[in-house]
Amino acid sequence: MPGVPPTRFVFLGPEGTFAEQALRTIPAAEHGTRTPARSVPEALDAVRAGDADAALVPLENSIGGQVGVTLDELADGEPLVITREVVLPVQFVLGARTAVPLGEIRSIAAHPQAHAQCRHWLRAHVPAATVVDALSNAAAAAAAAAGEYDAAICAPLGAGRARLTVLAKDIADHADAVTRFALVSRPGPPPAPTGDDLTTLAVYIAHDRVGALLAVLTELAVRGVNLTRIESRPTGERLGRYVFFLDCSGHVAEVRMGEALQGLRRVCADVRFLGSYPRAGTERPAPAPPGTADADFADAAAWLARIRAGGPA
Amino acid sequence: MPGVPPTRFVFLGPEGTFAEQALRTIPAAEHGTRTPARSVPEALDAVRAGDADAALVPLENSIGGQVGVTLDELADGEPLVITREVVLPVQFVLGARTAVPLGEIRSIAAHPQAHAQCRHWLRAHVPAATVVDALSNAAAAAAAAAGEYDAAICAPLGAGRARLTVLAKDIADHADAVTRFALVSRPGPPPAPTGDDLTTLAVYIAHDRVGALLAVLTELAVRGVNLTRIESRPTGERLGRYVFFLDCSGHVAEVRMGEALQGLRRVCADVRFLGSYPRAGTERPAPAPPGTADADFADAAAWLARIRAGGPA
Amino acid sequence: MPGVPPTRFVFLGPEGTFAEQALRTIPAAEHGTRTPARSVPEALDAVRAGDADAALVPLENSIGGQVGVTLDELADGEPLVITREVVLPVQFVLGARTAVPLGEIRSIAAHPQAHAQCRHWLRAHVPAATVVDALSNAAAAAAAAAGEYDAAICAPLGAGRARLTVLAKDIADHADAVTRFALVSRPGPPPAPTGDDLTTLAVYIAHDRVGALLAVLTELAVRGVNLTRIESRPTGERLGRYVFFLDCSGHVAEVRMGEALQGLRRVCADVRFLGSYPRAGTERPAPAPPGTADADFADAAAWLARIRAGGPA
Amino acid sequence: MPGVPPTRFVFLGPEGTFAEQALRTIPAAEHGTRTPARSVPEALDAVRAGDADAALVPLENSIGGQVGVTLDELADGEPLVITREVVLPVQFVLGARTAVPLGEIRSIAAHPQAHAQCRHWLRAHVPAATVVDALSNAAAAAAAAAGEYDAAICAPLGAGRARLTVLAKDIADHADAVTRFALVSRPGPPPAPTGDDLTTLAVYIAHDRVGALLAVLTELAVRGVNLTRIESRPTGERLGRYVFFLDCSGHVAEVRMGEALQGLRRVCADVRFLGSYPRAGTERPAPAPPGTADADFADAAAWLARIRAGGPA
Repeated sequence: MPGVPPTRFVFLGPEGTFAEQALRTIPAAEHGTRTPARSVPEALDAVRAGDADAALVPLENSIGGQVGVTLDELADGEPLVITREVVLPVQFVLGARTAVPLGEIRSIAAHPQAHAQCRHWLRAHVPAATVVDALSNAAAAAAAAAGEYDAAICAPLGAGRARLTVLAKDIADHADAVTRFALVSRPGPPPAPTGDDLTTLAVYIAHDRVGALLAVLTELAVRGVNLTRIESRPTGERLGRYVFFLDCSGHVAEVRMGEALQGLRRVCADVRFLGSYPRAGTERPAPAPPGTADADFADAAAWLARIRAGGPA
Repeated sequence: MPGVPPTRFVFLGPEGTFAEQALRTIPAAEHGTRTPARSVPEALDAVRAGDADAALVPLENSIGGQVGVTLDELADGEPLVITREVVLPVQFVLGARTAVPLGEIRSIAAHPQAHAQCRHWLRAHVPAATVVDALSNAAAAAAAAAGEYDAAICAPLGAGRARLTVLAKDIADHADAVTRFALVSRPGPPPAPTGDDLTTLAVYIAHDRVGALLAVLTELAVRGVNLTRIESRPTGERLGRYVFFLDCSGHVAEVRMGEALQGLRRVCADVRFLGSYPRAGTERPAPAPPGTADADFADAAAWLARIRAGGPA
Repeated sequence: MPGVPPTRFVFLGPEGTFAEQALRTIPAAEHGTRTPARSVPEALDAVRAGDADAALVPLENSIGGQVGVTLDELADGEPLVITREVVLPVQFVLGARTAVPLGEIRSIAAHPQAHAQCRHWLRAHVPAATVVDALSNAAAAAAAAAGEYDAAICAPLGAGRARLTVLAKDIADHADAVTRFALVSRPGPPPAPTGDDLTTLAVYIAHDRVGALLAVLTELAVRGVNLTRIESRPTGERLGRYVFFLDCSGHVAEVRMGEALQGLRRVCADVRFLGSYPRAGTERPAPAPPGTADADFADAAAWLARIRAGGPA
Repeated sequence: MPGVPPTRFVFLGPEGTFAEQALRTIPAAEHGTRTPARSVPEALDAVRAGDADAALVPLENSIGGQVGVTLDELADGEPLVITREVVLPVQFVLGARTAVPLGEIRSIAAHPQAHAQCRHWLRAHVPAATVVDALSNAAAAAAAAAGEYDAAICAPLGAGRARLTVLAKDIADHADAVTRFALVSRPGPPPAPTGDDLTTLAVYIAHDRVGALLAVLTELAVRGVNLTRIESRPTGERLGRYVFFLDCSGHVAEVRMGEALQGLRRVCADVRFLGSYPRAGTERPAPAPPGTADADFADAAAWLARIRAGGPA
């Protein structure tokens, strides 16, 4: 219900993974219920069915890339909108039941993606250890806690939850790796503009002809709307149909974004609005180009009205 | 005064030239007063001063090209708007006092542009005749009527007015040459859209940098507004400033044209609206691209309103 | 070594997964060695080190989306090129040790992505069964073969290798889901053009300013080069730098592609060529626009040469 | 003959007009023959027929605008190329047989365009004088010299040639008005690049559809070629065909211009090269955008060659 903050949260589980850690950065979630889901579709279906108010699911992460299942679920079925993004630094720790020296570690449980992200660190610091696949970071921590392996790669939250001793922190090879999550709700009025917002769209084009995507980008560029992310995915429904997932700088309440959205609506096979929400992080976006502020649009509208009335321009 | 049809007309003189002939194709002008002006500035100033309701002046002709003085006068000074265009076939006749055989003609009076347009015909049919410059087509006819020369090249109207016998018709080398005139008034509500209209603009850009004109055309193209004429002229005012005269398919009352005009207003140094008026001639324009009809804009606006309200899209 | 077909292949393991199945569609791989790697980086490093001639790794799949680790590994480090793509239908089967009726199945092992792709089928046909996560499709099959679970979701190849009885075929919810793999080698002359090829690029732009991506696409569109896939990824190296992964229709040996690549090289911060190779599948691409065939470029080059020499154009 | 400087010049007459004045700014013309022609077609035909080496004709002037007859003659018939432009300030003087006070002048002979350009000056300084049309500036001067009128508006050269006393200098209303002339020859190697050159083109497009001109400009912009002038003219030949006259910054010998020309050749119905020649005047053009210098093209070509050979990029 618009205006009523969400209290029942669902997140991509299991507990102790990055999704829970991300959810807990949201104040309202600290005071609400937090239920793990086994999959992204399960989490989103809980929101669609009204069993939860909001779901926290991954959109993309630095190693695995886009999370296709989230994009597809947002593009299909009952409409949902993103109301918030959470960007979480990917911080891996090496945890063990006790404070053993690194040189004595022979086996390490790790989710394959976590393993991939810490490859160089592992080679340098525990070259002799065998890394064994686990189903999730939380499962890896649990296996180490159960004594199945000497240590585990996991999230800081997961290490604490499994009562592991942290042998090493920040072991990911890329210090600035992040995972980006979306808080997703049923449609409702978007959060108020903050001056630094993102708008996410799913745009369908009918053919992969030369220039179809160019036309989409031109609709944005001509209104000064910047693009911060783009992903194409073939749609299963029909041969030769593509869907593009776009993150644009700006808010649906701004005139330039509104005109751009209308342009896409007019020229594309379909457009699905997936939400306007504050940009996470502290990096300032590029300023909008001259002539694209709301005041510029208002001036132009007033001028047009004068012309149409036959008055002095 | 809006709604009151003009009754006092001024045209680029002298009498008997193509401008008068063009003016007389307008029914209201048949019943009003028709006063020749000595120059385009004089004609337009009469309208600006309220001494005339409308002025008929040339915009471009097939041989001389754009009529720079008309463009400059429309772009500068008190605003004026075009309410009608008249496209007149350039039909030259060879006239003489009496019905002499072509072979006996030794001297022909002609305005230099008329001479240029009939060059091939003259070489083929009166190769021995000397062509002597005259100040206008009407002056050439008058000189032939006065017996100063054996014949004159002039407009059909001019031949009749000077009581010349037409020795040969349609002597212009290009059968489809035309002159395009504009009927110009003080600002007022434009004529109602007919479904096949033109809109004329003067667009100023600040620099001749790569892409400045491209940006102008993109503002039009992205709304499906077609361009039928473009002329660039350097402006005297300031170094490096350019003005482009554009004729676009469509009417200022149409949504796509309105949005395009607002776009130009926002991104260009200046835009002057020079009128929306019915296209002359019978050739149908290219249809507007899909998604650019008023109904498409209305659908897109309704969709945006739903999105902004948080309702189902 | 150019000209010598690869004989030592590595693939993303373990054995029995789709990657091995994809590799075995390549004739040369049937006669060469096929070694599983534990991760995409491990597979590619084997090629870089000369321990293998080619690696088969996933690029994207219908459910998981882009395989970020593959893209990142191709964009970074020692250059590698794609020489072939393999598009494999995602065909899941439900296998069990013996031919039990579906109604008796209580537990099913499945990789989470496989689970997600078969959700609707599972709900309809084995609603009472509990689905338990496995680390890979092959691991799920092995667990069912070992009697740990009543059944497993796996690839057809994996079912056969684990000697499972197939209880149901084609159980994926989307019949046309596919996974796309790349065969990757050290740089060498690309395979000869076939008339239906793809070229893969990693393009870096310096800023996320409005129009930067538009400029990239314009370089392609103006030469008639079509885009079939685009993915953006932030680069870790430097703030505000983006890399776009592009799949373009055409071959580096074609003039239009060559000119487009040079254009990108000139205007982008960096471009990495990731290979030209035959397009998989039977769907014909959109034909190149008029004026972009090699013959058109040859004609234009000859014309330019004549102009420069001052001869007749 | 290439390499041999022209010695036989023809110019748009009569003698004593701006065209002759413009021609005499060219050193070679000072030592060659200078023959007046009665019209632009006559001047150009003299070059085509080999009766002259070069013709000086007007391209555009500040008041009259484009000189359509020159453009049409260059676009049609036997090819000709511009080898030099001359930009002449429009300097009008008021001349009389003797040094009479302005207050005593009752009649002034003037070419209508000259009259239009000096309107404000005349109104302010000789308000009581009647201005009478003359066929050219030279004819006006001659009439004043013959005593037919009290004074004449003419070019400084024309005043001197008619032995008139200059009563007032610089009487044009716009101090920076200019006329632009072209020196036109039969095709031959263009003058060497100077670093600040113009290239003139006539570009034909088949339809006036939305985006046709946009496509032309994109071919230029994507190679960093700037546009300093554009004029559209309908072609008589075929309905719906347009020809655009373009002046572009750069020389046909430059790589970026060459690639742009080839692009136009490929995508337009027709392109006629009308010459590369040094820009007149002292105003520096906007620098070419990054990545479009000859060295950038050479770097990109070398990179492409390495890629195609399969070597390290």
